[in-house]
Amino acid sequence: MNGQMMQQPLLISSLLTHAERHHGAQQIVSRRVEGDIHRQSFREFASRARRMANALIALGVKSGDRIGTLAWNGHRHMELYFAVSGSGAVLHTLNPRLHTDQLAWIADHAEDQVLFFDLSFMPLVEAVAPRMTTIKAFVAMTDRAHMPASSRIDGLLCYEDLLAAHDDRYVWPTFDENTAATLCYTSGTTGNPKGVLYSHRSTVLHAYAVALPDSLNCSARDVILPVVPMFHVNAWGLPYVACMVGAKLVLPGPGLDGRSLHELLESEGVTLSAGVPTVWQGLLAHVEAHDLTFSTMRRTVIGGAACPPAMMRCFQEKHGVQVIHAWGMTELSPLGTACVLKGDLASLSSEQRYAIQAKQGRAVPGMDMKIVDEHGAELAWDGKQSGELMVRGPWVVSRYLKNEGGDPLVDGWFPTGDVATIDADGFMQITDRAKDVIKSGGEWIGSIDIENIAMAHPQVSMAACIGVPHPKWDERPLLVVVKKPGAELTRDDLLSFFEGKVAKWWTPDDVAFVEAIPLGATGKMLKNKLREQFKSHPLATAWA
Amino acid sequence: MNGQMMQQPLLISSLLTHAERHHGAQQIVSRRVEGDIHRQSFREFASRARRMANALIALGVKSGDRIGTLAWNGHRHMELYFAVSGSGAVLHTLNPRLHTDQLAWIADHAEDQVLFFDLSFMPLVEAVAPRMTTIKAFVAMTDRAHMPASSRIDGLLCYEDLLAAHDDRYVWPTFDENTAATLCYTSGTTGNPKGVLYSHRSTVLHAYAVALPDSLNCSARDVILPVVPMFHVNAWGLPYVACMVGAKLVLPGPGLDGRSLHELLESEGVTLSAGVPTVWQGLLAHVEAHDLTFSTMRRTVIGGAACPPAMMRCFQEKHGVQVIHAWGMTELSPLGTACVLKGDLASLSSEQRYAIQAKQGRAVPGMDMKIVDEHGAELAWDGKQSGELMVRGPWVVSRYLKNEGGDPLVDGWFPTGDVATIDADGFMQITDRAKDVIKSGGEWIGSIDIENIAMAHPQVSMAACIGVPHPKWDERPLLVVVKKPGAELTRDDLLSFFEGKVAKWWTPDDVAFVEAIPLGATGKMLKNKLREQFKSHPLATAWA
Repeated sequence: MNGQMMQQPLLISSLLTHAERHHGAQQIVSRRVEGDIHRQSFREFASRARRMANALIALGVKSGDRIGTLAWNGHRHMELYFAVSGSGAVLHTLNPRLHTDQLAWIADHAEDQVLFFDLSFMPLVEAVAPRMTTIKAFVAMTDRAHMPASSRIDGLLCYEDLLAAHDDRYVWPTFDENTAATLCYTSGTTGNPKGVLYSHRSTVLHAYAVALPDSLNCSARDVILPVVPMFHVNAWGLPYVACMVGAKLVLPGPGLDGRSLHELLESEGVTLSAGVPTVWQGLLAHVEAHDLTFSTMRRTVIGGAACPPAMMRCFQEKHGVQVIHAWGMTELSPLGTACVLKGDLASLSSEQRYAIQAKQGRAVPGMDMKIVDEHGAELAWDGKQSGELMVRGPWVVSRYLKNEGGDPLVDGWFPTGDVATIDADGFMQITDRAKDVIKSGGEWIGSIDIENIAMAHPQVSMAACIGVPHPKWDERPLLVVVKKPGAELTRDDLLSFFEGKVAKWWTPDDVAFVEAIPLGATGKMLKNKLREQFKSHPLATAWA
Repeated sequence: MNGQMMQQPLLISSLLTHAERHHGAQQIVSRRVEGDIHRQSFREFASRARRMANALIALGVKSGDRIGTLAWNGHRHMELYFAVSGSGAVLHTLNPRLHTDQLAWIADHAEDQVLFFDLSFMPLVEAVAPRMTTIKAFVAMTDRAHMPASSRIDGLLCYEDLLAAHDDRYVWPTFDENTAATLCYTSGTTGNPKGVLYSHRSTVLHAYAVALPDSLNCSARDVILPVVPMFHVNAWGLPYVACMVGAKLVLPGPGLDGRSLHELLESEGVTLSAGVPTVWQGLLAHVEAHDLTFSTMRRTVIGGAACPPAMMRCFQEKHGVQVIHAWGMTELSPLGTACVLKGDLASLSSEQRYAIQAKQGRAVPGMDMKIVDEHGAELAWDGKQSGELMVRGPWVVSRYLKNEGGDPLVDGWFPTGDVATIDADGFMQITDRAKDVIKSGGEWIGSIDIENIAMAHPQVSMAACIGVPHPKWDERPLLVVVKKPGAELTRDDLLSFFEGKVAKWWTPDDVAFVEAIPLGATGKMLKNKLREQFKSHPLATAWA
C-alpha cells in the first residue's frame, strides 16, 4: 500500500523557484572577470536563468545534452547551473586548471554540445577548441562591449546577446527526479578521469544534508562565500543550498588571492566561507601580514584535504572563526562528513576538543559509512583501528559515465580509497589515502599525521610525507618540505621536532627541502609525482 | 538520461539505523505511566525496535497492515514508530481525547489489526474494544508486573512479554519509498474524520525540512522535549528528527501539567520544546506562580494555533526563550511554515520584530504556497491582501484514505481552509480559518486579530471571537471570554481596550463571559460549538 502524499519530483528548478518566490530580494554579488562588482537579486537571477533556458532551446540543446562550462564563481555561472539542469540538459563543469590534453579528452568523452567560458579562459579555449570535436557552439560569458575584437573561434557567441534575444517567459519542465543534472570528472591522478553523473534527486537531497545545523548550518541570515570553485564538485553544493535557504551569495570570480578574498569577506559581510587549506593559507598570510581581522565571518568550512591543526588554531583562537572540518569526494556530491561537536563533548578541555576537530567528522544524515580490513570485514569504531573507508547513500556514485572502470561498488558500498578510523561517537578521521600509506616492516604509517606535525613547525610552509623504497623495511618515510621565506631550518632541527610527538619508528628517516610541492588541478599535493622524483633518494638508514 | 547515483530509498528504518550507528550512546528519557523515569540509549532503542518487528511478524502482521496505538509520548511508542513502519506496516496513531464513538469509527475505518495502548487508557479501550471489529490483538504497553489482574479484554497481551519472546536479529526490509508508513486522521470538526496516509518518502523529506536552521534548527547538541503528542501528526516529526540528527529526546508521558513539564525541562537540560499555546499557558502560569526560570531551554516552537503576542513576550523577554511560531496541518505532515527572521530584519526595532514574529512565518524549503481570491486568482504578496492559503510539496496530502471526500486538490494545490496574508519577504500570517471569518457587510473580519487583542488584556484568560447573525450586516463579531480567576472585568472595560488597536468596525459588538470555551481533541477552540451556542445572542446593535 502506498502513501497518498503529493508526487512532487525533487528538481533543481524547484530550488530556483523557491528562491525567487520566497527570497526574491536576496542578493547574489559577483566579482567579475571584467573587473567590476556585480549585484543582482534572486528575482533577477531567476528571470535571467529563464531567458537562458530559452536561449539553450534556440541553440538546439535537447534534454540530456551535456553543456560544458569553463568558468569562475560568478552570477553567469549560477544562471547556467539552473538554466541548463532546470531545462533538462546536463551541466558539465570543466576544470580550467587541467592540462589542455585532459580538457580536450574530457569534453570529447562527455560529448559536450556547447561550451560557455569566462573571458579569462579565451586563450585556453582557443588552444583546445580544435580538439573538442563534439562542440557546436562556443559562448563567451560576457557582454557585447567586452567581446574580443577577433577570435580564432568561428562564430563565437556572446552570453548577454543570447539573453537579450530571448524573453523570460519559460515554464521549468517537470520530469523524473532521477534525470541527470550535472557532470563532474574525478581528478584522475591515476588513469583517465572518470565522469560522475549527478541526478536532480541526489543534488536536492545533498543540499538538504549540507544545510543542516550539524553540517554547514546555512540559513537566510547567512552570507556565503564559496571559495571552492563552482567547477569543482558544484562548489560543494553551496549554489543549491543558497537558493534552498535564501542565503546571500558572494562569488569571488578569479580573485582568490588573500587580499581580494579578505576585501570581499569584509565588504559584503560574509558569515560563512568554504575552501581547501591551500587557499586559506594565502588568506591567513595576508591577514597576518597586514594585521587584519574578520569582522563578520563566523564559520569556515575546510575540506578537500586535511586541515593542518595550526591553521585551525589560528582561525579559532586569533580570529574567532569556527572551523568546520569536512570531508567529501567527487563521487559523494561531495559532502560525506562534517566535524561539529556533539552536546556531551562541550565540557571537554580545549586540547581534547582540538583532538576531535582534527577529525573529518560525523557522517551527515543520509550518508552511512564503515571501515573494513583487507578482507572486507567491518572494523570496530574505537578510534584506533584503521581500514579502508566505505560509504553509501543517495548522493553516492553507483557507476561512472559510460561505465568506465566497471562496477565500482563492493556489496553496495563505495570504496573511497581513503584509510580512516572511526571513534565511538562516530567521528571519522582520515589517516591516509590508501595509495599514500607508508608500509614499513608490515606496519602502516599514516602520512597525514607526519605532515601535520611538520606543518606545526613555525618555519615550515608546506610538507609532504611519502614512502621511499628501503632494502630492509620495504618503505620508510621521507619528509619533503618547503621552508617559509628566510627560514633557517636544518634536517636535524626538524627531525628532533618529532620527538615525543609520535612513535619513534614513525619519525621520517630523512628530510628533503624543495622550492615547491607539485599541486593538482584541485589543489591537492601530487604525491605520486613526489614518489617518482624521490624513488632513488638515498636514505642513510638503508645502510645501517 | 538518468544520473548514476545510488538508488537508496528514503526509509524510516534508515533514520533508526543512522541513530544506532552514529549516535548509539544518545539517550531517550521517558516519564512513564507506571510513574518512573526510564532511560535508554539509541542503541538499546534500536535493539528493542527490532525485537518488536519480530514480535509483529509473530502476531501475523503483514506489509501494509494498519497497527493502532493509543499512547502518550514514551519510549515504547517510539519503538512502535520504527518497528511498525520500518517493517512495512502502517502505524496508526489514535487520539485518546476523541469521543469513543469517533475512536471506534476511526479504528474500523482504518481496519486496524492490532491495538497497542498505554495502561492509562485501559478503561477507554475496554469501553470501545467491542466496537473495534477489525482488531485481532490488544497489547498493553507495560511489563508483566504492571499488567492488570483481570481485564474485560480477552487474550490481552503484554508489551514486554512480546519483546522478551523475540530476539533482536532482524534486518529492516528495503522497499519503495512511496510505501505507506503512518496514518493520522484529521480532527474533523465537520463531518467524519479523514485519514492522511504518509509515506516513508514524505516522512523523511519532512524530517530534513524540520531540522533545518530556519525551521526548528535541530542538532546533536539539542535536548528535545516534544509536548505535542505523538498521537497528533507524529509529534510534528520530532521523533524522526531526533534520530536523524542524534538529539537527546525527552518524552513527558501523561505529565503535561505545568509542574511536571517544568521539572522535566530542568532535570534533563531540555534546549528545545514544541507544543500548542494552551499547554504553554499552563506551564507559564506554573513558572510565574512559583517564580521559576528556564535554565537550559533556548527555543520553543508554538503551533497548532496562533501564539498570543503576550505569551511570546513572556517567553522571550522574561525567560530568554526564543519563540518559533510555526504553522502546519495534519495534511502537511504537519510543518508548512516557521517564523525565523531573515538577516536583513535583524536591524529592526523590537516592536517591528514582534510584528513579524506574530506571523506564522516562511514556507520551509520544499513547501510552496500562494494565496488566492474567491475565483482562484493568485493575490499579491504585500502583507495586506488576504485570501485562501494553498500549498503544495512532497509532504502534502494528495488524497485521503479510501478517497473520502474525493479529490481535495485544486490545480495541484491543496486548499488549506485558512485565510492568510503573505508579505514581500514571504512571511505568511493566518488571519482566520475560512469558516471562522466574520463576514460583516461584504467585508471580512479576522477573528484571530480580535482574539489576540483580547488575550493581551491582563484579566483575560482565554478569548474566542465568532460571527453571530445580524439583520443589517449579515454577521457581527461577538467576543466570548473566560476571565482570569478573581478578575473584575466588565463588557465596557474590555471593549474600550480595543480603542486605537483596530478599525472601529472590527471592534466586537458585544462580550459574553463564560466559564470555559470548548476545546477539541487537539486543543483547538471549537468555534462551531460556540456559534451554535450563541446563534441567537441578542446584539444591541441589531436594533440600532
